[in-house]
Amino acid sequence: MVEKRTPVPVGEAVHRLSTQNVSGKTELIPLEQSFGRILAEDIYASHDVPAFDRSPYDGFAVRAADTQNASQDEPVRFKVVGEIGAGSLFTGEVKPLQAVRIMTGAPIPAGCDAVVMLELTKEISRDEIEIKRAFPQGANISRQGEDTKKGTVLVRRGMTINPGAVALLATFGYRHVKVAVKPLIGILATGSELVDVDEPLTPGKIRNSNAYMLIAQIERAGGKAVYFGKLDDEFEACLKAVKQALTEVDFLVISGGVSVGDYDYVPAILQEIKASVLFNKVGMRPGSVTTAATVGEKLIFGLSGNPSACYVGFELFVRPMIRKALLADKLHLRKVQAVLGTDFPKPNPFMRFVRARLSHQAEKLVAAPSGKDKSGIVSSLGETDCFIVLPSGTRGYEKGMVVDVLLLEDDEGSEWPWNDIVRSYK
Amino acid sequence: MVEKRTPVPVGEAVHRLSTQNVSGKTELIPLEQSFGRILAEDIYASHDVPAFDRSPYDGFAVRAADTQNASQDEPVRFKVVGEIGAGSLFTGEVKPLQAVRIMTGAPIPAGCDAVVMLELTKEISRDEIEIKRAFPQGANISRQGEDTKKGTVLVRRGMTINPGAVALLATFGYRHVKVAVKPLIGILATGSELVDVDEPLTPGKIRNSNAYMLIAQIERAGGKAVYFGKLDDEFEACLKAVKQALTEVDFLVISGGVSVGDYDYVPAILQEIKASVLFNKVGMRPGSVTTAATVGEKLIFGLSGNPSACYVGFELFVRPMIRKALLADKLHLRKVQAVLGTDFPKPNPFMRFVRARLSHQAEKLVAAPSGKDKSGIVSSLGETDCFIVLPSGTRGYEKGMVVDVLLLEDDEGSEWPWNDIVRSYK
Repeated sequence: MVEKRTPVPVGEAVHRLSTQNVSGKTELIPLEQSFGRILAEDIYASHDVPAFDRSPYDGFAVRAADTQNASQDEPVRFKVVGEIGAGSLFTGEVKPLQAVRIMTGAPIPAGCDAVVMLELTKEISRDEIEIKRAFPQGANISRQGEDTKKGTVLVRRGMTINPGAVALLATFGYRHVKVAVKPLIGILATGSELVDVDEPLTPGKIRNSNAYMLIAQIERAGGKAVYFGKLDDEFEACLKAVKQALTEVDFLVISGGVSVGDYDYVPAILQEIKASVLFNKVGMRPGSVTTAATVGEKLIFGLSGNPSACYVGFELFVRPMIRKALLADKLHLRKVQAVLGTDFPKPNPFMRFVRARLSHQAEKLVAAPSGKDKSGIVSSLGETDCFIVLPSGTRGYEKGMVVDVLLLEDDEGSEWPWNDIVRSYK
Repeated sequence: MVEKRTPVPVGEAVHRLSTQNVSGKTELIPLEQSFGRILAEDIYASHDVPAFDRSPYDGFAVRAADTQNASQDEPVRFKVVGEIGAGSLFTGEVKPLQAVRIMTGAPIPAGCDAVVMLELTKEISRDEIEIKRAFPQGANISRQGEDTKKGTVLVRRGMTINPGAVALLATFGYRHVKVAVKPLIGILATGSELVDVDEPLTPGKIRNSNAYMLIAQIERAGGKAVYFGKLDDEFEACLKAVKQALTEVDFLVISGGVSVGDYDYVPAILQEIKASVLFNKVGMRPGSVTTAATVGEKLIFGLSGNPSACYVGFELFVRPMIRKALLADKLHLRKVQAVLGTDFPKPNPFMRFVRARLSHQAEKLVAAPSGKDKSGIVSSLGETDCFIVLPSGTRGYEKGMVVDVLLLEDDEGSEWPWNDIVRSYK
C-alpha cells in the first residue's frame, strides 16, 4: 500500500516549522573565543570614542591664537615645556607661546586647542621650535566622541561576531561576551545499504556519506553535531535509537527511511512516539519526501537518504531552526538575485533547487549549476555555494534570465525569502 | 630626527612577501573534524558512483523485452520472484515474465534491464503484478559510473573543505583526511597608552582592541592565534618579548610601535635581531607604516597601532602568508567588481582601502562604506565585509562607477588581485 501524501509548498512548510517555539539559551564566553559565535545582547558604547580630545599625529600642541601671525617670513617661536607620550598626561596648563611635544593618540593638554604636525615645525634648540603658518582653533584634534558617542548601539543581538565586532567589544571592555549556546543536533543515518566510511564496500552497498555531510552542515549553520551512528532498516532498533537520541539533543535529524517504501520506518516511528507531523511531503525537487515533526519542544527532521535531497532539505528546513535556537535575527538562507548561467529548458512541476556556484562577471553575479543535477549525484556538492531557485511552471528558463539564488556560505541570512520569488519568464 | 622611508606600491609589497619561502605542514585528521580545514591532497574517486547499476525508484525490475506488447488494454502479467531491499542482493537470474520487487538504491538483478516504478504497476496477488505500457531497455536504471567515474579528481588540494566535500570524502572511504596544519601566529600589542580589556579606562588611555581583533582575523584566515600580551613602549622589554615569541610561533604580528616616533621601537628591534626588512612603508591608506621582515623562515609583521590601519594591514599582508602556510592555492583576498554606492570626491595620493559593506541590487553588487572612514575609527569595523579599492590619482570617484572590491568573508581567494585594478574614471 502506497500512503497518499499531500505536498505542501516550500514556503508553507518552512512557515509551519519556523513558527514552532524554540528556546535558545545564552552563555558568557571569553572575548578571545567569541569569533564566529552569535551575539545574544546588543552592544552599546560604554564611553565616547575617543574618550578624550587627542592628537591624531606626532607633533606639538599649542594655543591656536599664538600661531595667527606666523608666516614663512616671520615664524613664531615657541618654548617647549613638556612632552606627552601616548598614554601619559601633561598635568600643567599651557601658557601663551608655549608648546608641548605630543605623540599620536595622546591627550591634548589643558590650554591647547591645535596640534602642529612634527614635519611643519622647525627645531631651534632642545626646548625651542618655530612654526611658519597659522593654524585654526581645533586644527588636528580628534574630538572626544567624534567616532562614537557613549550609548550608541554598535553591534546588534543576533549578529555573527566578526573581527570588527571583536574590536568593538574589546574597546568597550567586554572581557566576556553573551552569546547563544550552540544547539545540539543529533544525527541518525538509516538504511541497510549503508556501510561506514572505514568499512569495505561490498556488492549492493554504498558508503554512509550523509551523516558526515550533515555534521559539516550543522557546524556551518552554527550548531553542534552529535552522531549516533547508522542503523539498518529495522523498526525496533530504529525506534529505540530515536527515543534514546531525543533524550540527549535539541533536534534530531534522521537521514533515510522517510519515504513510503516497505523499509521506510520513520513514519511509523513518529506515530509510535506520538510526534506531531508538521509535513511529510514538500512541493520541491529534490527532497520532496522531507518530513518534519515535533515531540514536545524537540524537533525531528526526516531527510531523504539521497545525498543531494538530504543536503537541500537540511539547508531549507533544519538550518533556519538552528538559527532560531541561536537567536539569530534572520533565520533563512540569504536570498539574492543573479543571472542564470545556463538554460533549463524543462518546465518544473514543482519548485526546483539547483545546486550551483556563483561567479562574478563585471559587477553582476552569475549562477550556474555546479555539476550534474540529478538528485542522486554527489560529485557536484563540493563545488556548491548556492541554490538556484526555479519556481514551478509550464515553461523552462533561459540563460541570461534573472533568478533568485540562496547563498550557502553566508552568515547574514534573510528574514523571509519565500515571498516574491523571481519567476523570470521573458 | 624623522627617518626617511620610501613607500612601495601595495602590489610590490605583497610580492616581496609572497615570494618568501613558507613551508606548510600537513596532518591527518578524522573526517568529522575536517569541515573548514584546507585539503592538502587531491581527492580521487576510488570507485565508480554508482558502484553498480541500481534502481533510482521503488518498483519492479523486469526484462524490458517482456513489456514491449504491454498496453492499457492488454496489460502484461509478471510473476514476482523476489524482493531486494537497498543493500541486499538478488542472487538468481531473472527469467522471462518474471519481476523482482526492488527498492530505491538496490542493485539491478541479473537478467533485468528496466525498472517499472511502483505506481505504474498493479498488484494482482501476493506474487503477481500487471504492467500496462512498454519500457525501453535501460529505463529507470542508474548506470554504474554515471555520476562519477573511478579516478576522477573530485576535490583539489588547497580547497577549503565544505559539507559537499565532506560528503565526497565519506563516499570514497576517507576516514582520515590530509589537511594543512594551522600555522601559529603570535600577537604582541605595544603601546603605553593601552589598558587591557578588563582594566578600567584611566585618563589618556585606550583599550587594547587590536590584539583581540587580530585573534579573530587570524582565526578567520585559518591560522591559530597565540597572544603574548601587551607591552609598554620600552625597548628592552619589547625586544625580549619579540625574541621569546619568535621561538614559539611561525609568524609574529606586532601592533603599534612601527612608525618613526620617539616611542616606536619596532625598527630598532628588527635591527637588533638582524631581521631583513622587506618594506616599512606602503603607498596606501590606511596602514602606510606597515612593516614586514624575515628572520630565517619566520615572518614578522609590524602593523599600525591604529585599529583600522591594523585591520587593513592584516588582511592585505598577513592573511596571504597564513594562506600560503595553509597550502591554499589562491593566497589573496578575492577580488570582484561592484558598483560604488557613494561618491568619493577627494582624489587619493595613495591607493585607498575603504572599509565597506556589499549589498545586492537586482543582480548587481553594490559596495558602500560601512561607516565613517577615518583611519582612527573603530565603529565601522563591525559592519565591514569588504574593502573598496580606490587607486591613487588626481580625480575622485563617483557613485555608480564600477570598482574593485576585496571580499573579507570568503574562503576562495584570488591568485593575484593586484594587476588591472579598475581605475573607473568616467
